[in-house]
Amino acid sequence: MTECRVTIYNEFVHEQRNPEVGKLYPKGIHGAIGEYLVAQGFLVRTATLEMEEHGLTRDVLDATDVLIWWGHVAHHKVDDAVVDRIQSRILNGMGLIVLHSGHLSKIFRRMMGTSCGLCWREAAERERLWVVNPNHEITQGLGRYIELPNAEMYGEQFDVPEPDELLFISWFEGGEVFRSGAVWHRGRGRIFYFRPGHETYPIFYNQDILRVIANGVRWAKFRGNTETCGIEVCPNITEPLEAIEDKGVAFAEIEHPQ
Amino acid sequence: MTECRVTIYNEFVHEQRNPEVGKLYPKGIHGAIGEYLVAQGFLVRTATLEMEEHGLTRDVLDATDVLIWWGHVAHHKVDDAVVDRIQSRILNGMGLIVLHSGHLSKIFRRMMGTSCGLCWREAAERERLWVVNPNHEITQGLGRYIELPNAEMYGEQFDVPEPDELLFISWFEGGEVFRSGAVWHRGRGRIFYFRPGHETYPIFYNQDILRVIANGVRWAKFRGNTETCGIEVCPNITEPLEAIEDKGVAFAEIEHPQ
Amino acid sequence: MTECRVTIYNEFVHEQRNPEVGKLYPKGIHGAIGEYLVAQGFLVRTATLEMEEHGLTRDVLDATDVLIWWGHVAHHKVDDAVVDRIQSRILNGMGLIVLHSGHLSKIFRRMMGTSCGLCWREAAERERLWVVNPNHEITQGLGRYIELPNAEMYGEQFDVPEPDELLFISWFEGGEVFRSGAVWHRGRGRIFYFRPGHETYPIFYNQDILRVIANGVRWAKFRGNTETCGIEVCPNITEPLEAIEDKGVAFAEIEHPQ
Amino acid sequence: MTECRVTIYNEFVHEQRNPEVGKLYPKGIHGAIGEYLVAQGFLVRTATLEMEEHGLTRDVLDATDVLIWWGHVAHHKVDDAVVDRIQSRILNGMGLIVLHSGHLSKIFRRMMGTSCGLCWREAAERERLWVVNPNHEITQGLGRYIELPNAEMYGEQFDVPEPDELLFISWFEGGEVFRSGAVWHRGRGRIFYFRPGHETYPIFYNQDILRVIANGVRWAKFRGNTETCGIEVCPNITEPLEAIEDKGVAFAEIEHPQ
Repeated sequence: MTECRVTIYNEFVHEQRNPEVGKLYPKGIHGAIGEYLVAQGFLVRTATLEMEEHGLTRDVLDATDVLIWWGHVAHHKVDDAVVDRIQSRILNGMGLIVLHSGHLSKIFRRMMGTSCGLCWREAAERERLWVVNPNHEITQGLGRYIELPNAEMYGEQFDVPEPDELLFISWFEGGEVFRSGAVWHRGRGRIFYFRPGHETYPIFYNQDILRVIANGVRWAKFRGNTETCGIEVCPNITEPLEAIEDKGVAFAEIEHPQ
Repeated sequence: MTECRVTIYNEFVHEQRNPEVGKLYPKGIHGAIGEYLVAQGFLVRTATLEMEEHGLTRDVLDATDVLIWWGHVAHHKVDDAVVDRIQSRILNGMGLIVLHSGHLSKIFRRMMGTSCGLCWREAAERERLWVVNPNHEITQGLGRYIELPNAEMYGEQFDVPEPDELLFISWFEGGEVFRSGAVWHRGRGRIFYFRPGHETYPIFYNQDILRVIANGVRWAKFRGNTETCGIEVCPNITEPLEAIEDKGVAFAEIEHPQ
Repeated sequence: MTECRVTIYNEFVHEQRNPEVGKLYPKGIHGAIGEYLVAQGFLVRTATLEMEEHGLTRDVLDATDVLIWWGHVAHHKVDDAVVDRIQSRILNGMGLIVLHSGHLSKIFRRMMGTSCGLCWREAAERERLWVVNPNHEITQGLGRYIELPNAEMYGEQFDVPEPDELLFISWFEGGEVFRSGAVWHRGRGRIFYFRPGHETYPIFYNQDILRVIANGVRWAKFRGNTETCGIEVCPNITEPLEAIEDKGVAFAEIEHPQ
Repeated sequence: MTECRVTIYNEFVHEQRNPEVGKLYPKGIHGAIGEYLVAQGFLVRTATLEMEEHGLTRDVLDATDVLIWWGHVAHHKVDDAVVDRIQSRILNGMGLIVLHSGHLSKIFRRMMGTSCGLCWREAAERERLWVVNPNHEITQGLGRYIELPNAEMYGEQFDVPEPDELLFISWFEGGEVFRSGAVWHRGRGRIFYFRPGHETYPIFYNQDILRVIANGVRWAKFRGNTETCGIEVCPNITEPLEAIEDKGVAFAEIEHPQ
């Protein structure tokens, strides 16, 4: 694999405020995911809410192939200018992986265009994530399903655009289902939403969950050395490729938007 | 057909500034489209940029089944609070039809999550819109293609999410192609983008173009009398549908976002 | 609603061989569905395996807007020539609704191009069909889910092409999930697969299930009065729409396929 | 790249019957494509119509990662038993790349479920294939479009299921458009249709066309080391994952299909 630079953003609030979460993730959720990805050969950087520009400066984003996002109680504290910058990088090819409660993050809602709402319940119930697409890069190396003994429930309807490819559907002990893994393309960028990851359970130590995240990073990495035109720009192609007949239509003088 | 209330928004700038456009559309682009739709039995209202709240107050939107959007040079003058309100109405079931240069409008970019960029040229060239999906409501009553003698060219890449259904592909005299008619679902709402409609050509008098817009309105009209959950809300479903085993997992006290 | 002619095919084997099924569906599964659809104002005809050409002659199919299919143990007894004929009618606009074990029917496998396999279990377990798309014609008039006290389980992976729109996902008491309602477009035709309907349970008397079937018929009905070209034919368009430059390329004499 | 075994099927009729085609492709179309792929490091094997079982024995298919298909006048001579075998291999993970007139081949029609019809014209006209998806593996290393000075025209409507991803749209000098590059997933297999390749033009010597085919092979290669269930089999999962309540429902003795 060619070099792949991953930036893991975690708002890093629960771990510092809540002793039980802090004990579970002593280096933060970003730390747990980061350790695994480093061991897999990725180049990893982390970023948290309280860092300047949330650690997501232009330089950092420009040097990021795939951005991983975990947030929950502090979505509203993320600066809109940073969100603009991330969106622009995604349209130009940076991958985005959104985990669990990141469904309500500004950046995910921005990219989806929807509310990204859902139903939820915290009852430590059993979850089983069924693989519905076994030939996608992201589901490689798995059995028919991943089982989590304790999870927060997320239930339908999940207000996102119909996925380009649906990868996982969750079964919950309490009676609900959820589209738990799905991908979308936006501009030159690839986006993967993956449901598991509640802060009070040791989900980011589960080897199958970590494997899916690593697969996701490999899939989301920008490939593009193809020429583009139209993504974030609206160039005036004055010179046609084919001769255009003069139709004697007088053009009005038109003002154009910026 | 049951009653269908259509609101046509037009920024209404070119018609007032440019005498040639004014002569072509003496009642404005909204007037031309509106006359046709009224004759087809729709309940039509119009709104323009300079009206208070651009004519798109909460009351108007609440009484709108389908919103049609034409804008070009004044996208940036549309108030963000109005855009928020329109997005919310779409997610709750209002249809949206975006015409021509509306591809760069705030509301369309908001709903798509992408830049909605493209390439363009003004050379009065010939355009032929090929029907690629002949069994969609929107393409009913047409021949194999619609031909426009003079059109502004829009070329790929068109930076939008892969359409849920692609309806039209345009051929341009100067050598380009474009995905000219496409639909997307967002929340409970239906969105239709339709490319033709440059202000300097009599496109909104073309019977096939008008027919497509009317078909689009019928298709985009909200159907939903189905119960929803998750769209614009994240309810806590504390009562499970199935009994959940007590696993003795102590819950951390979690603060939740608003 | 304009007139809509529905033909209900049922292999009609279980009802005659198995007294319990016969008692549950004394007029056959086709009879139970048919009674409901007649009461809804549809024009209904039924067809069964043992009829000549299975009751699906050219004349019958030509006079059918939507074909409903229920089969289970006798898929292999359906004549291939009849399957060819049905496929052709679908491509030309007839709707197809495939119920339950019809997933292995020749016509569904023909239209999908896949094996249409799945996993299953008969344990009278509870099923809950969650609506994941609340603004589709087929899900109108429902709550958030349909609950069936006893059902045969169908589990993923379901070997079908990714649906054009996914409408229902089932939760099963025994731990599985299934994409229970989905639609696909093929040629000018519309196809709806709907999972429930095991012959030993009174599922075709459930009002929500019947409502979904009726909604499906309305949705699948052919709309097309649009001109087509390419569907089941490959016409040679010798006359171009635009002038083609003579490039002095000598053409080899080519034999063409039929 | 790990080893990738490609089998190129060419009916190999035009090259032997028509001296001009024979001069253009002295080693056959399969030879021209094969030379390029060998130089790119793929393991290549070729197969032609007149070989026993068309060169596509079970052993050959079992040792094939990606099958490339070119056929035109002899589609009807391909044995149905071989088509069955290819379909089964695709559902189990073999990739399929269908070129040009292969759109009417038995295997492509089988996988699509549609007629795969289109409109066509032979007038040595100019074709321009526009890249509409610049971040797909298959479009890597290209400019905004590929231009072919002389091509057979294929026009819409192209009777195939809506592609999972649309990659190329062609512009033709004579006024038509066509969805020239598209992909579909079926079972565990990946399918790529690529339009160019008429036998009377030197299209399979064009470096961009060859690059797309090589990209297609890399993309279509089977990944799957994920466990599957349901693809080509319908196992009875008698042992549930969760306890099922005894509901006292008596089961009818049911006969099951094979």
